[in-house]
Amino acid sequence: MNSNMEKPYVVGIDIGGTNTVFGIVDARGTIIANGSIKTQAYPTVEEYVDEVCKNLLPLIIAHGGVEKIKGIGVGAPNGNYYSGTIEFAPNLPWKGIIPLAAMFEERLGIPTALTNDANAAAVGEMTYGAARGMKDFIMITLGTGVGSGIVINGQVVYGHDGFAGELGHVIMRRGTGRLCGCGRHGCLETYCSATGVARTARELLTGRTDKSLLREIPAEEITSKDVYDAAIKGDKLAQEIFEFTGNILGEALADFIAFSSPEAIVLFGGLAKSGDYIMNPIHKSMDENVLAVFKGKTKLLVSELKDSDAAVLGASALAWELKDL
Amino acid sequence: MNSNMEKPYVVGIDIGGTNTVFGIVDARGTIIANGSIKTQAYPTVEEYVDEVCKNLLPLIIAHGGVEKIKGIGVGAPNGNYYSGTIEFAPNLPWKGIIPLAAMFEERLGIPTALTNDANAAAVGEMTYGAARGMKDFIMITLGTGVGSGIVINGQVVYGHDGFAGELGHVIMRRGTGRLCGCGRHGCLETYCSATGVARTARELLTGRTDKSLLREIPAEEITSKDVYDAAIKGDKLAQEIFEFTGNILGEALADFIAFSSPEAIVLFGGLAKSGDYIMNPIHKSMDENVLAVFKGKTKLLVSELKDSDAAVLGASALAWELKDL
Repeated sequence: MNSNMEKPYVVGIDIGGTNTVFGIVDARGTIIANGSIKTQAYPTVEEYVDEVCKNLLPLIIAHGGVEKIKGIGVGAPNGNYYSGTIEFAPNLPWKGIIPLAAMFEERLGIPTALTNDANAAAVGEMTYGAARGMKDFIMITLGTGVGSGIVINGQVVYGHDGFAGELGHVIMRRGTGRLCGCGRHGCLETYCSATGVARTARELLTGRTDKSLLREIPAEEITSKDVYDAAIKGDKLAQEIFEFTGNILGEALADFIAFSSPEAIVLFGGLAKSGDYIMNPIHKSMDENVLAVFKGKTKLLVSELKDSDAAVLGASALAWELKDL
Repeated sequence: MNSNMEKPYVVGIDIGGTNTVFGIVDARGTIIANGSIKTQAYPTVEEYVDEVCKNLLPLIIAHGGVEKIKGIGVGAPNGNYYSGTIEFAPNLPWKGIIPLAAMFEERLGIPTALTNDANAAAVGEMTYGAARGMKDFIMITLGTGVGSGIVINGQVVYGHDGFAGELGHVIMRRGTGRLCGCGRHGCLETYCSATGVARTARELLTGRTDKSLLREIPAEEITSKDVYDAAIKGDKLAQEIFEFTGNILGEALADFIAFSSPEAIVLFGGLAKSGDYIMNPIHKSMDENVLAVFKGKTKLLVSELKDSDAAVLGASALAWELKDL
């Protein structure tokens, strides 16, 4: 009997700035039980971890107990895989370096791995999704920001310090680039995140006078969803916003290919679901900008994980690699 | 008795556009015998391989014979590690896909590995040089072009197709960039190679009127060595050329760090030997441009291998990993 049969489940915990979601997952990627709590409601990390465990333990017991769980995987902002710590996460209430993996291990007696959410998404895609069987691919998460998880030779790239894979912060426009939350200018994230799309919309609407459905929305309230809704109604300016966004993302992907020559790039997030409006310009720009030796070799894929499940599945997938305590 | 004692030597073969150099190397990185032939003198690859073997075999026999050789490593332009082939190398006389590793294995009965010269340089640096003991570093070779070898988790990154690590061809200046030999515009190589430095010299000399020792040299004949010679004589314009070059290279290295968060970046080639004139601006620009989480973490090193030995050592280092045939 192999260990997956003895321990048929893993637990995934995804820590977001607003919500923490968790679930028990089987080897096929089915979430058999799940729950959530508010991340910000617990002033100390001890209270927070206690509350997660209080909610999680009844689910575990209902499915055969702790001995059925192979491990816990945690996806968290600023998560360091090597140390299992969260380090100086600006959007979480607990400051400094938090030894979160160790805290779960102590309370539940289950081995725990932790990394940032984009790396977890990459492992999730490799285990249950679009990158099954691949050894070399890059996951790009297009959300409020742009995150990335890089897999090379079947392993997530953590770098010498545990923080590798910050592709949202490569510089796409030097000198004239947009100010990024990181304090620098021209980062990929300032153009190709959901907020970057909204920013592009405001720039184009201000700088030009042509008609657009987007002019019916107060400029500061425009979201990337509004741009998508306008684009499918045939709004030319909205479609141009996606072309602009896809063009920059394609330029970036072409450079990423020069680095690790991946079999595929997997896109995740709302923007990646905007269909041809975004995928066509990305494809075109990637093809136009990639070095000849790589042309046509790297597949451009969209995540196969359901949005609502992806965070828990990604985190849970980390746990299959864990050794027993 | 371990296999390195039974087979104490490896062979390194470096195939350049002009010369092919080869040597027998011991475990400490000493070249105990070497030789060279002209690469272009053999119209067919069969004649070429025969000639290399004819020159190499007496050296091998003088040092105990084929049974003392652990393996052969070959560094070659457009070398594919997975297949052991050279594929469509523009500067070599043999066209198409050349199964070079297999040809050496057949003739000499010694297992043979092959990759491009920059990847070989990275393995050389990890085995004998500045990156000894490191598992995560990036090698940048600054020569006629800019090459790179990326090591992650102790393994060279070859990508899904064997051609990963073309960091000389990431785009540093979009829209306004210099035309590159690859047909695209703005590649790192067009600025930070030896030819890129000469190009910068010509641009600055044409566009400005200030005095410079470089004006004594016909513009088309200026080399990066001339720029260095002028810089150490206190020539301001020459020093400014290095600042310009170092600034762009530092910007590029900052982006590379966001990708794989290496422990070190190792620079190789004549330009890397230009001392503070180039290293100071690289350091400054890398620090100014790197994402905060990586600041001050990645060492900037210069290769520890002697220029004249580096190509053979790098190629030879590949062979230590080989299994017996």
